[in-house]
Amino acid sequence: MELFPVPDVPEVREGDDLAALVSERVDLRPDDVVCVASTVVSKAEGRFADLDDFPAGPRARELAARLAELTGDEKDPRFAQAVLEESVDLVMSEPFLLTETRFGHVGVNAGIDRSNVPDHDLLLLPKRPSESAERIRAGVDADRVIVTDTCGRPFRHGQRGVAIGWAGLSASRDWRGEADRDGRELGVTVESVVDELAAAANLVQGEGDGGTPVVVVRGFEWGDHGESDAHFRDIDGDFVRQALREWRYDP
Amino acid sequence: MELFPVPDVPEVREGDDLAALVSERVDLRPDDVVCVASTVVSKAEGRFADLDDFPAGPRARELAARLAELTGDEKDPRFAQAVLEESVDLVMSEPFLLTETRFGHVGVNAGIDRSNVPDHDLLLLPKRPSESAERIRAGVDADRVIVTDTCGRPFRHGQRGVAIGWAGLSASRDWRGEADRDGRELGVTVESVVDELAAAANLVQGEGDGGTPVVVVRGFEWGDHGESDAHFRDIDGDFVRQALREWRYDP
Ligand SMILES: Nc1nc2c(ncn2[C@@H]2O[C@H](COP(=O)(O)OP(=O)(O)O)[C@@H](O)[C@H]2O)c(=O)[nH]1
Ligand SMILES: Nc1nc2c(ncn2[C@@H]2O[C@H](COP(=O)(O)OP(=O)(O)O)[C@@H](O)[C@H]2O)c(=O)[nH]1
Ligand SMILES: [Mn+2]
Ligand SMILES: [Mn+2]
Ligand SMILES: [Mn+2]
Ligand SMILES: [Mn+2]
Repeated sequence: MELFPVPDVPEVREGDDLAALVSERVDLRPDDVVCVASTVVSKAEGRFADLDDFPAGPRARELAARLAELTGDEKDPRFAQAVLEESVDLVMSEPFLLTETRFGHVGVNAGIDRSNVPDHDLLLLPKRPSESAERIRAGVDADRVIVTDTCGRPFRHGQRGVAIGWAGLSASRDWRGEADRDGRELGVTVESVVDELAAAANLVQGEGDGGTPVVVVRGFEWGDHGESDAHFRDIDGDFVRQALREWRYDP
Repeated sequence: MELFPVPDVPEVREGDDLAALVSERVDLRPDDVVCVASTVVSKAEGRFADLDDFPAGPRARELAARLAELTGDEKDPRFAQAVLEESVDLVMSEPFLLTETRFGHVGVNAGIDRSNVPDHDLLLLPKRPSESAERIRAGVDADRVIVTDTCGRPFRHGQRGVAIGWAGLSASRDWRGEADRDGRELGVTVESVVDELAAAANLVQGEGDGGTPVVVVRGFEWGDHGESDAHFRDIDGDFVRQALREWRYDP
């Protein structure tokens, strides 16, 4: 298995055809997985925004005031408003905003970026990243596309690449029912392949000014395994979300 | 960047020299990252165990009885005892046991495996995986070694490869203070490189009877970035753990 960045990608602008940008720069094969940073998907889809687009309502003003009080930093209530408008559930409001986006992803500040955004204050995540992946897939010679983002997680420090959209492959390899080396049946392993591919791609994409938003994974074989498309947990099956709902931050 | 499995690894037994097993099968380069599944590290270190080794105390009996009641499946109190003995903190006891291991990793059932364990009931995680990584590193021509495991996470379905020990590299790349494409300073990104490498390796290791516990990552460049060795969160900085501590499962 091999990973390489698509070279010489320019600054992506609204309306750009990402599939064409990639296809002009690299000869793709059908079984390649094309991993595209959400940043450039958002740029192509015109998901730029400015703080003035989000006049703060009372809830946003309250959240921002409370966060400012807790962290000692000024917080712009318009940013809190943007986070609320991008979210369907506020998972945690203190000491930072952790929300569920419309497409089911749980992330800090609804995944709104303030880095790598020229001429605007904010870059929102793509509206429906799996549909974005599907559109890119329709225009490239590779059969599999993943839209990635970088985000943090509980229990472990730091952030890592994750998949927020995918097309042409299932989210997970389901190993249940297969045999281990001793012929014993595997009980619980469902492997989140799209997240593992996104994590791998993120090592090559980087987080800064590298200019390498698209990484090709070549030679990844799914193998003869079950498939599952479950990716984002509902609150019903997510005890951590249930616990956070009841929890109150105590500084 | 390229990943390939070390071929023809035999069944690993207690006392085996993993560094020699790998070195005999592949020509390593100094900048390779050798990713070794915790399963075989545990086997080499003799971390096999049997349920009879863990006579259940009252707490384990209570936990097992409660889990059996909740799930409808019989639970062996000796297994609960093994989990308790491998842990320093019970993060969640219902509807499954989520604990912190002695070395700081939070995982279900203290990471104790019942797959790929010949002739014994259980395989415990290595006692100090970073020391295991360091020992392997001392015997191979590669400068970087990661001990991996597979585990689940909140918010997202499925499991993925993570690093539980590492040697010869830092846990994370610290991008803070670097510039984005527009010269704006990056604020929060610390990238968990060892977890991303472990996730990538896990795609090649697999979960079943593939027999590929060791994967070499070739051509990964750290680049000129800051480093951090923080990997497992303390409860003080982990709001999810704090929330779980107070939460009670309500079936
Ligand atoms: N060539 C090019 N690279 C970009 C552009 N926007 C971001 N990048 C690069 O894409 C990679 C990932 O950027 P990041 O902001 O971390 O994206 P995210 O993880 O999707 O939020 C980095 O190497 C950036 O330098 C762009 O418009 N053109
Ligand atoms: N050759 C060989 N492969 C093994 C051995 N034990 C496990 N494996 C393989 O190592 C890979 C990872 O196994 P798994 O049980 O998921 O390990 P874990 O993720 O560390 O818990 C799979 O391909 C297994 O078939 C062994 O003793 N010898
Ligand atoms: Mn982002
Ligand atoms: Mn990123
Ligand atoms: Mn394991
Ligand atoms: Mn595994």
